[in-house]
Amino acid sequence: MISTDTIVALATPSGAGAIAVIRLSGPEAVSIAAEVFQSVSGKDIRKQPTHTIHLGHIVDGAKVLDQVLLSLFKNPNSYTGEDVVELSCHGSPYIQQQLVQLLLRKGARMAEAGEFTLRAFIHGKLDLSQAEAVADLIASDTEASHQIAMQQMRGGFSSEIEKLREELLNFASLIELELDFAEEDVEFADRGQFGALLDRIEFVLKRLIDSFAVGNVIKNGIPVAIVGEPNVGKSTLLNALLNEERAIVSDIAGTTRDTIEDELVINGIGFRFIDTAGIRETQDVVESIGIQKTFEKIGQAQVVIYLIDGGQLAESGTDKVRVELEKIKNQYPQKPLVVLVNKKDKLSENQIDNIKNELRAAQTLLFVSAKQKEGVDALKEQLLSFVNTGALRNNETIVTNSRHYDALLKALEEIEKVKWGLQSGLPADLMAIDIREALYQFGLITGQVTNDELLGNIFANFCIGK
Amino acid sequence: MISTDTIVALATPSGAGAIAVIRLSGPEAVSIAAEVFQSVSGKDIRKQPTHTIHLGHIVDGAKVLDQVLLSLFKNPNSYTGEDVVELSCHGSPYIQQQLVQLLLRKGARMAEAGEFTLRAFIHGKLDLSQAEAVADLIASDTEASHQIAMQQMRGGFSSEIEKLREELLNFASLIELELDFAEEDVEFADRGQFGALLDRIEFVLKRLIDSFAVGNVIKNGIPVAIVGEPNVGKSTLLNALLNEERAIVSDIAGTTRDTIEDELVINGIGFRFIDTAGIRETQDVVESIGIQKTFEKIGQAQVVIYLIDGGQLAESGTDKVRVELEKIKNQYPQKPLVVLVNKKDKLSENQIDNIKNELRAAQTLLFVSAKQKEGVDALKEQLLSFVNTGALRNNETIVTNSRHYDALLKALEEIEKVKWGLQSGLPADLMAIDIREALYQFGLITGQVTNDELLGNIFANFCIGK
Repeated sequence: MISTDTIVALATPSGAGAIAVIRLSGPEAVSIAAEVFQSVSGKDIRKQPTHTIHLGHIVDGAKVLDQVLLSLFKNPNSYTGEDVVELSCHGSPYIQQQLVQLLLRKGARMAEAGEFTLRAFIHGKLDLSQAEAVADLIASDTEASHQIAMQQMRGGFSSEIEKLREELLNFASLIELELDFAEEDVEFADRGQFGALLDRIEFVLKRLIDSFAVGNVIKNGIPVAIVGEPNVGKSTLLNALLNEERAIVSDIAGTTRDTIEDELVINGIGFRFIDTAGIRETQDVVESIGIQKTFEKIGQAQVVIYLIDGGQLAESGTDKVRVELEKIKNQYPQKPLVVLVNKKDKLSENQIDNIKNELRAAQTLLFVSAKQKEGVDALKEQLLSFVNTGALRNNETIVTNSRHYDALLKALEEIEKVKWGLQSGLPADLMAIDIREALYQFGLITGQVTNDELLGNIFANFCIGK
Repeated sequence: MISTDTIVALATPSGAGAIAVIRLSGPEAVSIAAEVFQSVSGKDIRKQPTHTIHLGHIVDGAKVLDQVLLSLFKNPNSYTGEDVVELSCHGSPYIQQQLVQLLLRKGARMAEAGEFTLRAFIHGKLDLSQAEAVADLIASDTEASHQIAMQQMRGGFSSEIEKLREELLNFASLIELELDFAEEDVEFADRGQFGALLDRIEFVLKRLIDSFAVGNVIKNGIPVAIVGEPNVGKSTLLNALLNEERAIVSDIAGTTRDTIEDELVINGIGFRFIDTAGIRETQDVVESIGIQKTFEKIGQAQVVIYLIDGGQLAESGTDKVRVELEKIKNQYPQKPLVVLVNKKDKLSENQIDNIKNELRAAQTLLFVSAKQKEGVDALKEQLLSFVNTGALRNNETIVTNSRHYDALLKALEEIEKVKWGLQSGLPADLMAIDIREALYQFGLITGQVTNDELLGNIFANFCIGK
């Protein structure tokens, strides 16, 4: 399993920038670098201490490729736990390519996706869930997803799992010991304590499993369906919601998110807006297909905003709206629904009161003027209130990884079996089988149990260079 | 001029990668970093030696933003000559943005484009032409353009100019000294030696000015017009030329150049292929506009490839081709012209001999089969032979920067005036004016003479973070 070769890859994003970083890791990292690096002060980098930086040139024979800063990390004090050399070069794609090719010619091998982090895992620098959090951390684009990944990378999640696993392992060995003395009918494992431990494990597992619902929306954003006919002001509303937030994102050149037009981060939580057509009664076949699609999209969403033009409402009354709201409620009784009356600046106080009165059955009724940006903050607060961020605020562990979720579900299943076995006085040898299976599932999360296929799946999702 | 504030910027390309580097430079760089950095081993980075690396966390109050490596550079031993701190963080755009914003809140200022290199220039770490080469180096995308930028960054160009400037300065002070003794009619400056120096300067200036033609094509690529009717195999030829070279470029993920379909690098020299229609005789107004455009494009090109279908040629004879070639030659007698007969695999030896005989007036006649990739190497060699790469091979200084070119032209003009003055016995006080002007132009290149507008223009072309 342990690699004996030296890998190389570009660690910074591809493209042109001021600088780029090329990373070497493995037993030959320093000697390969020494072959192509000429220190300006004539130092031999093989004799320099770890965590030092050296200015020099990368030479290919007589040709000088670039002036670089070389950072030296000696094993085990590096990201991978191996000898690591990082070359900080000028950020031209041509130079990046030339340097990587030179290092390949000198004996390094192109790193595979996630291979640096895989090596960190193999050398015990990170456990498996921490390693997975590295990829999540790089992919995180909201405060909440970043916070969860950061917590997981720092071991919050795996230390909790690991502690339970060790306690369970203790009992498991006592029970296995009983098997050796099966004929003497002794009980080394205190059944009362064991039952209490199982209860505790069950509680933690259930909490972690429940957190996946929150974790999943935080990682992927919360889908919000906007139901509304054309011209009620959907795009103006989206712009009003987006405008302020966009400014934050565009502070750093190149990080604008112009392409993700309908995604919005409110207080660190991502929301994805799904545009739908209206749902009015129709005889038209084509239109009825559109209405069916609207319902499908509502089904996928976690929150529904029903957007109406306040002016139209004052003119033609609320009857039609009430029918449509009824339809949505019948189909999705549990789904949070915000009735949002737009263009409130065109309504008199009297008209607003009338609408409030007629639509009082609505779960949540808000008035905004998307154009004047009035009421937008209240809408944001309303949207946030639908997200169970309690766990997040309290710094509790949240599961976001579906691999962990699956393992937790299976572990819970096995723990329930053990519990049932304990209650019904199952012989120790049969109970031991279920305990072992539960331990296996725990081990899958933190990486005590691994196989090549599992590792392959996990690290293939990484970018090259990490 | 010298800045007293501390600047910050993302130094690596924007977007997601394994890692990103954020750079701080200025008097407060270390203290700002110390405020947000918590070393894992409890070290105070303000007390650490220069060129060392430290693992720790970036914290914003109680919140941990990321685990980073902090690289410390103490003035004057840094890129800018100031205290510099580089934070190597996880490469998520979200984290990059959060870290930069945190550092801004702690008192750093967002760096302007090129401001790090501007500071390096101000602190004497680079002269102006070296600083300009940094931008060229980052933009370089071929071996030749990279080599020139590298040479310029290492001072090859400016040291040559600087040496001449100093010699000229010596004579200038002697001549200015003569002015103080004007009534005594002494000559401190040996007129013979001065004349020889002026000859030498003139020679070097002319060589540098001439090199700009080479430098310019190397920097921007050599334009090649392909003249040929539809279906003679233009795109197959381009693909045959491109195929092998593309493989090199795509070795690093993300550096493919799929969008620049008609640019090709042969032996490190860039060629840009310009597709044109044919130039046959026509009565048609629309077509005759097309023919006019073809001639315009030939005018812009440095090399012309006249591409013919060999099969058609064998069938309908070479008369029409000869007329067309004659037209091109009449219009552009000096332009290198390659007559390229494609689909040679469809021709018998006999037919090839006939064509060779009938088109013997052609300056260069080549036979290829673009589809079979036969003769493509000979074509590449032919294209390379048109480029004056002698200067490049001999490691001579090549001017690629039009600002330098302008200054060199003006310096030459002034030197010619001084020379004329010397020959015609111009009084020292009048000659001194021209010498001063020449010195001024020299100084503009290396940066002894600067003004804010000039610096503003130069560094505005940099990327932020450099």
